[in-house]
Amino acid sequence: MNYACINGEFCTTDNAMIGIQDMALQRGYGMFDFFKVMGGKPIFLDDHLDRFWESARLLRLPLSVSRETLTKHIHQLIEMNQWSEAGIRMTLTAGYAPDGYSIHEPNFLMSGQPVQLPETISEKGLRLFSYAHQRQLPLIKSIDYLMAVWIQQEVKNSGADEVLYHQGGWITECPRANIFLVTADGVLVTPGEQVLKGITRKKILEVAEKIVKIETRPVHLDEFKAAREAFITSTTKLITPIAAVDGIAVGTGGPGEISRVLFDEYYKLLPI
Amino acid sequence: MNYACINGEFCTTDNAMIGIQDMALQRGYGMFDFFKVMGGKPIFLDDHLDRFWESARLLRLPLSVSRETLTKHIHQLIEMNQWSEAGIRMTLTAGYAPDGYSIHEPNFLMSGQPVQLPETISEKGLRLFSYAHQRQLPLIKSIDYLMAVWIQQEVKNSGADEVLYHQGGWITECPRANIFLVTADGVLVTPGEQVLKGITRKKILEVAEKIVKIETRPVHLDEFKAAREAFITSTTKLITPIAAVDGIAVGTGGPGEISRVLFDEYYKLLPI
Repeated sequence: MNYACINGEFCTTDNAMIGIQDMALQRGYGMFDFFKVMGGKPIFLDDHLDRFWESARLLRLPLSVSRETLTKHIHQLIEMNQWSEAGIRMTLTAGYAPDGYSIHEPNFLMSGQPVQLPETISEKGLRLFSYAHQRQLPLIKSIDYLMAVWIQQEVKNSGADEVLYHQGGWITECPRANIFLVTADGVLVTPGEQVLKGITRKKILEVAEKIVKIETRPVHLDEFKAAREAFITSTTKLITPIAAVDGIAVGTGGPGEISRVLFDEYYKLLPI
Repeated sequence: MNYACINGEFCTTDNAMIGIQDMALQRGYGMFDFFKVMGGKPIFLDDHLDRFWESARLLRLPLSVSRETLTKHIHQLIEMNQWSEAGIRMTLTAGYAPDGYSIHEPNFLMSGQPVQLPETISEKGLRLFSYAHQRQLPLIKSIDYLMAVWIQQEVKNSGADEVLYHQGGWITECPRANIFLVTADGVLVTPGEQVLKGITRKKILEVAEKIVKIETRPVHLDEFKAAREAFITSTTKLITPIAAVDGIAVGTGGPGEISRVLFDEYYKLLPI
């Protein structure tokens, strides 16, 4: 039995339902955050709650739950589900708007499932497929993955694993991950504008400071050609190397030297 | 008591629920169509069903219901609700994807409520607020209204009624309506690319053929300055005049000569 929580009420996930008039279903208006549980404890919860509150503010959704109550509910959910290693998603929608087109009292959904994190960096890099698209309201972790899910068929057809968004060649992010590359000169670069500020991205930038020169700046697709190594970061993928972009090999195809060091340094932050 | 229909099963609208794992809630992946009921009969149903099937195809959602069965369900829903004048919405989502990120067996939701259509053209025009935005996958009537709902606060702050999207000054559409203007030379123009092909737009273009010269082409924001008249079209707003764009008056501010004639000609198509 798996439990979920809707507007502060716990129920089995099978019975976790929402009315079809909800604004997320009717108008795609909602946002979320997702964090890991390790050894029964939420990881980087403060960072995720900070971002959740910031997403809500930017999306103009009033959050009536307090941070204390929510934290209590999170711990309750973990306990009820006896989760040791898991992922928890908190979703906030614009609720049941009487006119079906405006922001009302939000619905707050929380659910999760067991998730096993990689313990070592993947030796096999991901192949990326670049596509011209800019996420709307990119600083908000909105539920808008329309393009991300739609484009998957092209991604597969091209023999790639995931899409990398760009605008006129200037890369931004993958739908569920941030991106970094290490230049021929050994500088770690990552785009800083029009991207979601990932929590893993933030942690990597923190641990990288003592290890490598960092530039947060516009990054062009052409830069992968000369890059020594490249990787993406996300809550579930941690650091995963990039093998190729649009069929052009990046670095050795597997994890580079900096990627390995950053993976290890990031891992040290985890309570294991 | 109001009834809805989920995956072919009828239920009261209060009990019309969907699991929180649905891809529309999780990833904003869904589409819909909306049509009127007049005198207990669905209006332009063939056009709406054609577009619904086309949206599903473009969004890569497999539709398992047949057109015959769906039509039967629509008539059943109208009868159960004893609707004379109403609006019905059919929504199709990517369903309960096991990985939470791909297209699965769709959920199909149908619900509605009484809607009274205007019987004469509004004497008061709408004030539009222009905003640089392009709807993603614009030929699909997707549930993505993230920007449309989000921007409403700016629209209100500016004293306007609705947003008009443009890209570099080239207008496309309002979030729920198409747009037309009549030039100083008396030509009816409307954008033809990167917009949803509205059913009311289509009917207006048909009836306009015998009345006025038509150009379907890129239209610039600057053209409102010299326009004789302008209006939007939608299933619920029919033809509604535009009074101003970004505070600059358009025509007389009320319905122009062509708008009135087209409203009357459109009305003749309705079974009343």
